[in-house]
Amino acid sequence: MSVLKIVFIGAGNIASNLSEVFKKKLSAEIHIFSRTENSAKQLAEKLNVSFSNDFNKIPDEADIYFLSVSDNALNEIVNNQLLKKKINNKLVVHSAGAIDIEILKPLSANYGVFYPLQTFSKFKSLDFKFIPICIEANSGFNYNTLSKYAFQLSDDVRKISSEQRKYIHLAAVFANNFVNHMFTISENILKEKEIDFKILFPLIQETIENLKNSSPKLLQTGPAVRNDMNVISEHLKMLGANENLIKIYTLISQDIKETKDE
Amino acid sequence: MSVLKIVFIGAGNIASNLSEVFKKKLSAEIHIFSRTENSAKQLAEKLNVSFSNDFNKIPDEADIYFLSVSDNALNEIVNNQLLKKKINNKLVVHSAGAIDIEILKPLSANYGVFYPLQTFSKFKSLDFKFIPICIEANSGFNYNTLSKYAFQLSDDVRKISSEQRKYIHLAAVFANNFVNHMFTISENILKEKEIDFKILFPLIQETIENLKNSSPKLLQTGPAVRNDMNVISEHLKMLGANENLIKIYTLISQDIKETKDE
Repeated sequence: MSVLKIVFIGAGNIASNLSEVFKKKLSAEIHIFSRTENSAKQLAEKLNVSFSNDFNKIPDEADIYFLSVSDNALNEIVNNQLLKKKINNKLVVHSAGAIDIEILKPLSANYGVFYPLQTFSKFKSLDFKFIPICIEANSGFNYNTLSKYAFQLSDDVRKISSEQRKYIHLAAVFANNFVNHMFTISENILKEKEIDFKILFPLIQETIENLKNSSPKLLQTGPAVRNDMNVISEHLKMLGANENLIKIYTLISQDIKETKDE
Repeated sequence: MSVLKIVFIGAGNIASNLSEVFKKKLSAEIHIFSRTENSAKQLAEKLNVSFSNDFNKIPDEADIYFLSVSDNALNEIVNNQLLKKKINNKLVVHSAGAIDIEILKPLSANYGVFYPLQTFSKFKSLDFKFIPICIEANSGFNYNTLSKYAFQLSDDVRKISSEQRKYIHLAAVFANNFVNHMFTISENILKEKEIDFKILFPLIQETIENLKNSSPKLLQTGPAVRNDMNVISEHLKMLGANENLIKIYTLISQDIKETKDE
């Protein structure tokens, strides 16, 4: 069996985790390209593979070209004629939640999406076994190729359309980014009273644990859902002069109240 | 050693968990009183203890009187002359996050707060070992009594003032109620596209896992923190006619942006 050869364009959080796991689990030959030379270098050295910031050096005989760059950069890269020539109708994929598969059409006759639904950091190597990998491709053949590789990384591989993926990404913004911001606000509130944020960890753990057995809607507790106006108005006073927090508290409480009986 | 005798006024989520763990871990003799007879009955039958909805039957020789009722009910109960007579200056405590210790002053010369920082359900019995128990009392003697019992339930017992507890409770509203509402919104977004909310579980688990090693503020990713206006405006379009969600998305995104460099 010949070695799977993958070119990564991009060296950020997703590229870093994907390239590492493709190397480890599929013994793939990896080449890293990034216009930010330093990022490319750091990742390539971690993986002990080649790198460059010069797109002229992109090999033209790779099996897959992975575009793992920011959404804005993806738009630009798709119009890169040199890259198009290098890819020469071989399989090109992106790994972005919010971007339609058809953005890749100008680049190659064979294209797809390989979207691992997780929050990644280049400083942390994740095990992909339980990470859902959302696959989409422009043909059954390319779909089979991508899902075959995906199954070597994860037990949870799904056929997800661009339309579905867009909504999964939106839901993930609420479940990860906005949840994380609620934690940031909590931490700030406690910091002002010199209380360690860790006091909330058992509560946070239980909040997540409960999701396994019930819909979050049915789990709601607290002043908003029981419409406890005394506590709510006291909380708004405590938030003091922070207008953003007062608005956030008021709006979320209102939405909890208004949707509880739907 | 004589048996610890505890009267619970209230039979809701907290009373249910507290009474059960006091019975189990301290072999306490429990008496359940609730104006909602059915709740009192259910809890008493689960614990195999006595119950009543008649405050005349409250024993006057208990060691501790636990007021585990809603914040509104607490206000009323404090002015109950019969209860005051029964307590007869013995130790009375409440278990509410948002309520000042001094609310109990009219009821007894000995009072305190016993606040387990957790989200409870009467349908689920929790292990208290890692639940922070926040203790406050009107005297050193009463503080020692309460913390002695607390340490028999949990490894994490803390001296927390009413002022601190109020802010812990506010922080908990963000970290539990509001986080849970973000999950509800996520679930609704996915449901419309017939995607199982469970696809987000590995992401949610990792979001929490990352808190162990870093401040949530430093962990923020996503369109808001990188000010990706294309994705943000696309998301706002996808939220369609739901004005509450558009406001919530906009406000939290704005707060993420405005606070990222603080």
